[in-house]
Amino acid sequence: MTGAAPAPITFWFDFASPYAWLASTQVEAVARRCGRTVRWRAILLGVIFRTTGAAPLGAQRLRGDYARRDLARLARRLGLPFATATPPAGTSLALARVFHAIALRDGALAARFAEDAFMAVFAHGEALDGSDAARAFAARLGPAAESAAAEALLPAARAALRSATEEALAEGVFGAPFFVVEGEAFWGQDRLPMLEAWLREGPW
Amino acid sequence: MTGAAPAPITFWFDFASPYAWLASTQVEAVARRCGRTVRWRAILLGVIFRTTGAAPLGAQRLRGDYARRDLARLARRLGLPFATATPPAGTSLALARVFHAIALRDGALAARFAEDAFMAVFAHGEALDGSDAARAFAARLGPAAESAAAEALLPAARAALRSATEEALAEGVFGAPFFVVEGEAFWGQDRLPMLEAWLREGPW
Repeated sequence: MTGAAPAPITFWFDFASPYAWLASTQVEAVARRCGRTVRWRAILLGVIFRTTGAAPLGAQRLRGDYARRDLARLARRLGLPFATATPPAGTSLALARVFHAIALRDGALAARFAEDAFMAVFAHGEALDGSDAARAFAARLGPAAESAAAEALLPAARAALRSATEEALAEGVFGAPFFVVEGEAFWGQDRLPMLEAWLREGPW
Repeated sequence: MTGAAPAPITFWFDFASPYAWLASTQVEAVARRCGRTVRWRAILLGVIFRTTGAAPLGAQRLRGDYARRDLARLARRLGLPFATATPPAGTSLALARVFHAIALRDGALAARFAEDAFMAVFAHGEALDGSDAARAFAARLGPAAESAAAEALLPAARAALRSATEEALAEGVFGAPFFVVEGEAFWGQDRLPMLEAWLREGPW
Protein backbone atom coordinates (compact mmCIF):
# COMPACT_ATOMS: atom_id res chain seq x y z
CA MET A 1 0.00 0.00 0.00
CA THR A 2 2.34 2.69 -1.26
CA GLY A 3 1.64 6.04 0.33
CA ALA A 4 -0.40 4.61 3.18
CA ALA A 5 0.64 5.72 6.64
CA PRO A 6 2.56 3.04 8.57
CA ALA A 7 0.47 1.14 11.12
CA PRO A 8 0.25 2.77 14.55
CA ILE A 9 1.57 1.26 17.75
CA THR A 10 -1.38 0.16 19.86
CA PHE A 11 -0.65 0.89 23.51
CA TRP A 12 -2.87 -1.12 25.86
CA PHE A 13 -2.86 0.17 29.41
CA ASP A 14 -4.68 0.08 32.72
CA PHE A 15 -4.67 3.26 34.77
CA ALA A 16 -3.68 1.32 37.90
CA SER A 17 -0.52 -0.13 36.37
CA PRO A 18 2.64 1.67 37.49
CA TYR A 19 4.70 0.14 34.67
CA ALA A 20 2.09 1.44 32.22
CA TRP A 21 2.62 4.88 33.78
CA LEU A 22 6.35 4.68 33.08
CA ALA A 23 5.63 3.54 29.53
CA SER A 24 3.16 6.40 29.06
CA THR A 25 6.01 8.85 29.56
CA GLN A 26 8.09 7.19 26.83
CA VAL A 27 5.83 5.70 24.17
CA GLU A 28 5.18 8.86 22.13
CA ALA A 29 8.90 9.56 21.80
CA VAL A 30 9.59 5.97 20.81
CA ALA A 31 6.85 6.13 18.18
CA ARG A 32 8.16 9.43 16.81
CA ARG A 33 11.64 7.98 16.40
CA CYS A 34 10.05 5.11 14.44
CA GLY A 35 7.84 7.32 12.28
CA ARG A 36 4.71 5.89 13.89
CA THR A 37 1.76 7.15 15.86
CA VAL A 38 0.36 5.73 19.09
CA ARG A 39 -3.16 4.39 19.50
CA TRP A 40 -3.91 4.72 23.21
CA ARG A 41 -6.35 2.09 24.53
CA ALA A 42 -7.44 2.00 28.16
CA ILE A 43 -8.59 -1.39 29.42
CA LEU A 44 -9.50 -3.08 32.71
CA LEU A 45 -6.85 -5.64 33.60
CA GLY A 46 -9.07 -6.94 36.41
CA VAL A 47 -11.50 -8.24 33.78
CA ILE A 48 -8.66 -9.90 31.88
CA PHE A 49 -7.27 -11.44 35.08
CA ARG A 50 -10.67 -13.09 35.67
CA THR A 51 -10.08 -15.00 32.42
CA THR A 52 -6.37 -15.73 32.79
CA GLY A 53 -6.32 -16.36 36.54
CA ALA A 54 -3.42 -13.94 37.03
CA ALA A 55 -3.09 -11.89 40.20
CA PRO A 56 -2.42 -8.15 40.38
CA LEU A 57 1.25 -7.28 40.85
CA GLY A 58 0.88 -5.90 44.36
CA ALA A 59 -0.85 -9.10 45.52
CA GLN A 60 1.97 -11.40 44.41
CA ARG A 61 4.24 -12.52 47.23
CA LEU A 62 7.83 -11.25 46.97
CA ARG A 63 7.21 -9.99 43.43
CA GLY A 64 5.14 -7.10 44.78
CA ASP A 65 7.97 -6.01 47.10
CA TYR A 66 10.49 -6.29 44.30
CA ALA A 67 8.28 -4.26 41.96
CA ARG A 68 8.03 -1.39 44.41
CA ARG A 69 11.83 -1.11 44.59
CA ASP A 70 12.20 -1.66 40.85
CA LEU A 71 9.67 1.08 40.08
CA ALA A 72 11.40 3.58 42.35
CA ARG A 73 14.73 2.77 40.68
CA LEU A 74 13.26 3.12 37.19
CA ALA A 75 11.55 6.39 38.06
CA ARG A 76 14.81 7.85 39.37
CA ARG A 77 16.55 6.69 36.20
CA LEU A 78 13.91 8.38 34.05
CA GLY A 79 13.98 11.54 36.17
CA LEU A 80 10.38 11.15 37.30
CA PRO A 81 8.97 11.78 40.77
CA PHE A 82 7.36 8.66 42.22
CA ALA A 83 4.58 8.71 44.80
CA THR A 84 2.99 5.27 44.83
CA ALA A 85 2.94 1.84 43.17
CA THR A 86 -0.58 1.06 44.36
CA PRO A 87 -3.19 3.73 43.68
CA PRO A 88 -6.58 3.47 45.44
CA ALA A 89 -9.00 0.77 44.29
CA GLY A 90 -11.32 2.19 41.68
CA THR A 91 -8.63 4.21 39.91
CA SER A 92 -8.72 1.98 36.81
CA LEU A 93 -12.44 2.16 36.33
CA ALA A 94 -12.98 5.84 36.97
CA LEU A 95 -10.18 7.01 34.72
CA ALA A 96 -10.84 4.44 31.98
CA ARG A 97 -14.46 5.55 31.63
CA VAL A 98 -13.45 9.21 31.37
CA PHE A 99 -10.70 8.28 28.92
CA HIS A 100 -13.15 6.51 26.61
CA ALA A 101 -15.72 9.30 26.91
CA ILE A 102 -13.06 11.72 25.68
CA ALA A 103 -11.71 9.31 23.07
CA LEU A 104 -15.17 8.99 21.50
CA ARG A 105 -14.82 12.64 20.55
CA ASP A 106 -11.09 13.29 20.25
CA GLY A 107 -8.40 10.60 20.38
CA ALA A 108 -5.49 13.02 20.77
CA LEU A 109 -7.19 14.77 23.69
CA ALA A 110 -7.83 11.40 25.33
CA ALA A 111 -4.14 10.54 25.01
CA ARG A 112 -3.22 13.82 26.66
CA PHE A 113 -5.71 13.08 29.43
CA ALA A 114 -4.11 9.67 29.94
CA GLU A 115 -0.59 11.09 30.12
CA ASP A 116 -1.64 13.71 32.65
CA ALA A 117 -3.74 11.33 34.75
CA PHE A 118 -0.92 8.78 34.91
CA MET A 119 1.45 11.45 36.20
CA ALA A 120 -1.10 12.69 38.73
CA VAL A 121 -1.69 9.19 40.11
CA PHE A 122 1.83 7.77 40.22
CA ALA A 123 4.19 10.73 40.29
CA HIS A 124 2.11 12.96 42.51
CA GLY A 125 -0.10 10.55 44.43
CA GLU A 126 -3.43 12.20 43.57
CA ALA A 127 -6.50 10.12 44.42
CA LEU A 128 -8.48 9.86 41.17
CA ASP A 129 -10.46 6.80 42.15
CA GLY A 130 -14.03 7.96 41.73
CA SER A 131 -16.15 9.41 38.95
CA ASP A 132 -16.20 12.88 40.43
CA ALA A 133 -12.44 13.06 40.92
CA ALA A 134 -11.75 11.68 37.46
CA ARG A 135 -14.13 14.14 35.79
CA ALA A 136 -12.80 17.05 37.79
CA PHE A 137 -9.33 16.10 36.68
CA ALA A 138 -10.44 16.07 33.03
CA ALA A 139 -11.88 19.54 33.48
CA ARG A 140 -8.36 20.85 34.13
CA LEU A 141 -7.59 20.08 30.45
CA GLY A 142 -10.17 22.60 29.29
CA PRO A 143 -13.83 22.78 28.28
CA ALA A 144 -13.64 20.16 25.50
CA ALA A 145 -12.31 17.53 27.90
CA GLU A 146 -14.71 18.67 30.61
CA SER A 147 -17.81 18.31 28.45
CA ALA A 148 -16.71 14.96 27.04
CA ALA A 149 -15.91 13.67 30.52
CA ALA A 150 -19.41 14.55 31.64
CA GLU A 151 -20.54 11.58 29.53
CA ALA A 152 -18.25 9.07 31.24
CA LEU A 153 -21.12 7.19 32.86
CA LEU A 154 -23.33 7.07 29.76
CA PRO A 155 -23.75 3.80 27.83
CA ALA A 156 -21.47 4.80 24.95
CA ALA A 157 -18.37 5.25 27.13
CA ARG A 158 -19.09 2.11 29.13
CA ALA A 159 -19.52 0.12 25.91
CA ALA A 160 -16.29 1.53 24.48
CA LEU A 161 -14.37 0.45 27.57
CA ARG A 162 -15.96 -2.99 27.51
CA SER A 163 -15.18 -3.56 23.85
CA ALA A 164 -11.60 -2.30 24.26
CA THR A 165 -11.04 -4.84 27.03
CA GLU A 166 -12.62 -7.63 24.96
CA GLU A 167 -10.51 -6.67 21.97
CA ALA A 168 -7.38 -6.71 24.12
CA LEU A 169 -8.13 -10.20 25.37
CA ALA A 170 -8.75 -11.38 21.82
CA GLU A 171 -5.35 -9.96 20.83
CA GLY A 172 -3.63 -11.89 23.62
CA VAL A 173 -3.11 -9.01 26.05
CA PHE A 174 -2.51 -10.44 29.55
CA GLY A 175 -0.79 -7.53 31.30
CA ALA A 176 0.10 -3.88 30.95
CA PRO A 177 1.69 -2.05 29.37
CA PHE A 178 1.23 -4.10 26.23
CA PHE A 179 2.12 -2.95 22.74
CA VAL A 180 1.07 -4.38 19.39
CA VAL A 181 2.31 -3.18 16.04
CA GLU A 182 1.66 -5.01 12.79
CA GLY A 183 0.67 -8.11 14.73
CA GLU A 184 3.88 -8.18 16.80
CA ALA A 185 3.34 -8.07 20.56
CA PHE A 186 5.59 -6.55 23.22
CA TRP A 187 4.76 -6.85 26.91
CA GLY A 188 6.20 -4.55 29.51
CA GLN A 189 7.76 -1.13 29.75
CA ASP A 190 11.15 -2.81 29.49
CA ARG A 191 10.30 -4.09 26.01
CA LEU A 192 10.13 -0.57 24.53
CA PRO A 193 13.79 -0.66 23.42
CA MET A 194 13.12 -3.95 21.64
CA LEU A 195 9.96 -2.59 20.04
CA GLU A 196 12.00 0.34 18.75
CA ALA A 197 14.74 -1.95 17.44
CA TRP A 198 12.11 -4.15 15.79
CA LEU A 199 10.61 -1.21 13.92
CA ARG A 200 13.90 0.47 13.02
CA GLU A 201 16.14 -2.52 12.28
CA GLY A 202 13.76 -5.46 12.08
CA PRO A 203 11.80 -7.56 11.81
CA TRP A 204 14.47 -10.14 12.50
CA MET B 1 37.57 -2.56 52.58
CA THR B 2 40.38 -1.27 50.39
CA GLY B 3 41.92 -3.97 48.26
CA ALA B 4 39.05 -6.40 48.73
CA ALA B 5 37.60 -7.83 45.53
CA PRO B 6 34.26 -6.27 44.58
CA ALA B 7 31.23 -8.37 45.49
CA PRO B 8 30.22 -10.97 42.91
CA ILE B 9 26.93 -10.99 41.01
CA THR B 10 24.83 -13.86 42.35
CA PHE B 11 22.95 -15.46 39.46
CA TRP B 12 19.97 -17.53 40.64
CA PHE B 13 18.61 -19.85 37.99
CA ASP B 14 16.44 -22.90 37.39
CA PHE B 15 17.51 -25.24 34.62
CA ALA B 16 13.95 -25.32 33.24
CA SER B 17 13.75 -21.54 32.76
CA PRO B 18 14.27 -20.48 29.14
CA TYR B 19 14.88 -16.87 30.14
CA ALA B 20 17.57 -18.10 32.55
CA TRP B 21 19.12 -19.91 29.57
CA LEU B 22 19.29 -16.65 27.63
CA ALA B 23 20.80 -14.91 30.66
CA SER B 24 23.34 -17.72 31.06
CA THR B 25 24.77 -16.81 27.66
CA GLN B 26 25.21 -13.17 28.68
CA VAL B 27 25.93 -12.89 32.39
CA GLU B 28 29.67 -13.64 32.34
CA ALA B 29 30.28 -10.95 29.71
CA VAL B 30 28.19 -8.46 31.66
CA ALA B 31 30.15 -9.25 34.82
CA ARG B 32 33.49 -8.90 33.04
CA ARG B 33 32.55 -5.48 31.72
CA CYS B 34 31.72 -4.48 35.31
CA GLY B 35 34.88 -5.97 36.82
CA ARG B 36 32.85 -8.56 38.73
CA THR B 37 32.61 -12.32 38.93
CA VAL B 38 29.46 -14.43 38.78
CA ARG B 39 28.31 -16.73 41.55
CA TRP B 40 26.15 -19.34 39.80
CA ARG B 41 23.39 -20.79 42.02
CA ALA B 42 20.97 -23.45 40.76
CA ILE B 43 17.61 -23.55 42.55
CA LEU B 44 14.23 -25.22 42.19
CA LEU B 45 11.61 -22.63 41.26
CA GLY B 46 8.88 -25.21 41.82
CA VAL B 47 9.69 -25.16 45.53
CA ILE B 48 9.59 -21.37 45.59
CA PHE B 49 6.28 -21.31 43.69
CA ARG B 50 4.77 -23.50 46.41
CA THR B 51 5.45 -20.62 48.81
CA THR B 52 4.54 -17.72 46.54
CA GLY B 53 1.60 -19.33 44.76
CA ALA B 54 2.99 -18.38 41.34
CA ALA B 55 2.44 -20.60 38.31
CA PRO B 56 5.13 -21.71 35.88
CA LEU B 57 5.35 -19.54 32.77
CA GLY B 58 4.10 -22.18 30.34
CA ALA B 59 1.00 -22.78 32.46
CA GLN B 60 -0.08 -19.13 32.42
CA ARG B 61 -2.87 -18.43 29.93
CA LEU B 62 -1.86 -16.08 27.09
CA ARG B 63 1.43 -15.27 28.81
CA GLY B 64 2.80 -18.70 27.94
CA ASP B 65 1.99 -18.20 24.25
CA TYR B 66 3.54 -14.77 24.29
CA ALA B 67 6.68 -16.06 26.01
CA ARG B 68 7.25 -18.69 23.32
CA ARG B 69 7.19 -16.02 20.62
CA ASP B 70 9.23 -13.61 22.71
CA LEU B 71 11.90 -16.24 23.40
CA ALA B 72 12.23 -17.14 19.73
CA ARG B 73 12.59 -13.45 18.89
CA LEU B 74 15.21 -12.91 21.60
CA ALA B 75 17.16 -16.00 20.56
CA ARG B 76 17.28 -14.78 16.95
CA ARG B 77 18.41 -11.39 18.17
CA LEU B 78 21.20 -12.98 20.22
CA GLY B 79 22.21 -15.31 17.39
CA LEU B 80 21.28 -18.44 19.32
CA PRO B 81 19.55 -21.54 17.99
CA PHE B 82 16.30 -22.21 19.84
CA ALA B 83 14.74 -25.66 20.21
CA THR B 84 12.17 -25.45 22.99
CA ALA B 85 10.68 -23.22 25.68
CA THR B 86 9.44 -26.17 27.74
CA PRO B 87 11.98 -28.89 28.49
CA PRO B 88 10.75 -32.24 29.86
CA ALA B 89 9.54 -32.37 33.46
CA GLY B 90 12.40 -33.36 35.70
CA THR B 91 14.99 -31.26 33.87
CA SER B 92 15.32 -28.83 36.80
CA LEU B 93 15.90 -31.45 39.42
CA ALA B 94 18.30 -33.73 37.53
CA LEU B 95 20.55 -30.92 36.35
CA ALA B 96 20.42 -28.96 39.62
CA ARG B 97 21.62 -31.96 41.61
CA VAL B 98 24.51 -32.55 39.24
CA PHE B 99 25.32 -28.85 39.27
CA HIS B 100 25.58 -28.80 43.06
CA ALA B 101 27.57 -32.02 43.15
CA ILE B 102 30.13 -30.40 40.85
CA ALA B 103 29.98 -27.05 42.66
CA LEU B 104 30.86 -28.72 45.95
CA ARG B 105 34.25 -29.47 44.38
CA ASP B 106 34.80 -26.77 41.77
CA GLY B 107 32.60 -23.70 41.31
CA ALA B 108 34.08 -22.71 37.95
CA LEU B 109 33.54 -26.19 36.56
CA ALA B 110 29.94 -26.13 37.78
CA ALA B 111 29.38 -22.83 35.98
CA ARG B 112 30.74 -24.35 32.78
CA PHE B 113 28.44 -27.32 33.26
CA ALA B 114 25.48 -24.98 33.67
CA GLU B 115 26.33 -23.01 30.53
CA ASP B 116 26.68 -26.16 28.47
CA ALA B 117 23.59 -27.85 29.89
CA PHE B 118 21.46 -24.75 29.27
CA MET B 119 22.56 -24.74 25.62
CA ALA B 120 21.91 -28.47 25.26
CA VAL B 121 18.39 -28.17 26.67
CA PHE B 122 17.11 -25.00 25.02
CA ALA B 123 19.24 -24.47 21.93
CA HIS B 124 19.54 -28.11 20.91
CA GLY B 125 16.53 -29.76 22.52
CA GLU B 126 18.45 -32.50 24.35
CA ALA B 127 16.43 -34.40 26.96
CA LEU B 128 18.43 -34.12 30.20
CA ASP B 129 15.52 -34.85 32.50
CA GLY B 130 16.80 -37.81 34.51
CA SER B 131 19.78 -38.57 36.70
CA ASP B 132 21.44 -40.79 34.12
CA ALA B 133 21.13 -38.28 31.29
CA ALA B 134 22.32 -35.41 33.48
CA ARG B 135 25.35 -37.36 34.70
CA ALA B 136 26.21 -38.59 31.22
CA PHE B 137 26.08 -35.00 30.05
CA ALA B 138 28.49 -33.96 32.83
CA ALA B 139 30.88 -36.71 31.74
CA ARG B 140 31.32 -34.91 28.42
CA LEU B 141 33.11 -32.15 30.34
CA GLY B 142 35.86 -34.55 31.39
CA PRO B 143 36.79 -36.85 34.25
CA ALA B 144 36.64 -34.22 37.01
CA ALA B 145 33.04 -33.38 36.15
CA GLU B 146 32.20 -37.03 35.65
CA SER B 147 33.45 -38.10 39.07
CA ALA B 148 31.80 -35.17 40.85
CA ALA B 149 28.50 -35.82 39.04
CA ALA B 150 28.54 -39.40 40.26
CA GLU B 151 27.73 -37.95 43.69
CA ALA B 152 24.64 -36.07 42.52
CA LEU B 153 22.25 -38.29 44.47
CA LEU B 154 24.26 -38.31 47.71
CA PRO B 155 23.07 -36.29 50.72
CA ALA B 156 25.64 -33.51 50.31
CA ALA B 157 24.45 -32.50 46.84
CA ARG B 158 20.79 -32.75 47.82
CA ALA B 159 21.44 -30.62 50.90
CA ALA B 160 23.33 -28.02 48.84
CA LEU B 161 20.39 -27.72 46.42
CA ARG B 162 17.91 -27.47 49.25
CA SER B 163 19.85 -24.77 51.07
CA ALA B 164 20.41 -22.80 47.85
CA THR B 165 16.66 -22.76 47.26
CA GLU B 166 15.97 -21.74 50.86
CA GLU B 167 18.58 -19.01 50.66
CA ALA B 168 17.04 -17.74 47.43
CA LEU B 169 13.61 -17.52 49.00
CA ALA B 170 15.08 -15.68 51.98
CA GLU B 171 16.69 -13.19 49.60
CA GLY B 172 13.34 -12.53 47.89
CA VAL B 173 13.91 -14.57 44.73
CA PHE B 174 10.51 -15.33 43.14
CA GLY B 175 11.49 -16.13 39.55
CA ALA B 176 14.45 -16.76 37.29
CA PRO B 177 16.81 -15.50 36.17
CA PHE B 178 17.34 -13.40 39.28
CA PHE B 179 20.47 -11.41 40.04
CA VAL B 180 21.61 -9.89 43.32
CA VAL B 181 24.66 -7.74 43.75
CA GLU B 182 25.44 -5.81 46.92
CA GLY B 183 21.86 -6.29 48.06
CA GLU B 184 20.35 -4.91 44.87
CA ALA B 185 17.98 -7.28 43.08
CA PHE B 186 17.32 -7.54 39.35
CA TRP B 187 14.72 -9.96 38.00
CA GLY B 188 14.68 -11.14 34.42
CA GLN B 189 17.04 -11.51 31.51
CA ASP B 190 15.83 -8.13 30.29
CA ARG B 191 17.19 -6.45 33.44
CA LEU B 192 20.82 -7.26 32.58
CA PRO B 193 21.35 -3.91 30.84
CA MET B 194 20.07 -2.15 33.94
CA LEU B 195 22.24 -4.27 36.22
CA GLU B 196 25.22 -3.27 34.09
CA ALA B 197 24.26 0.39 34.18
CA TRP B 198 23.78 0.17 37.95
CA LEU B 199 27.27 -1.20 38.47
CA ARG B 200 29.01 1.05 35.96
CA GLU B 201 27.16 4.33 36.44
CA GLY B 202 25.16 3.87 39.59
CA PRO B 203 23.82 3.39 42.10
CA TRP B 204 21.33 6.12 41.27
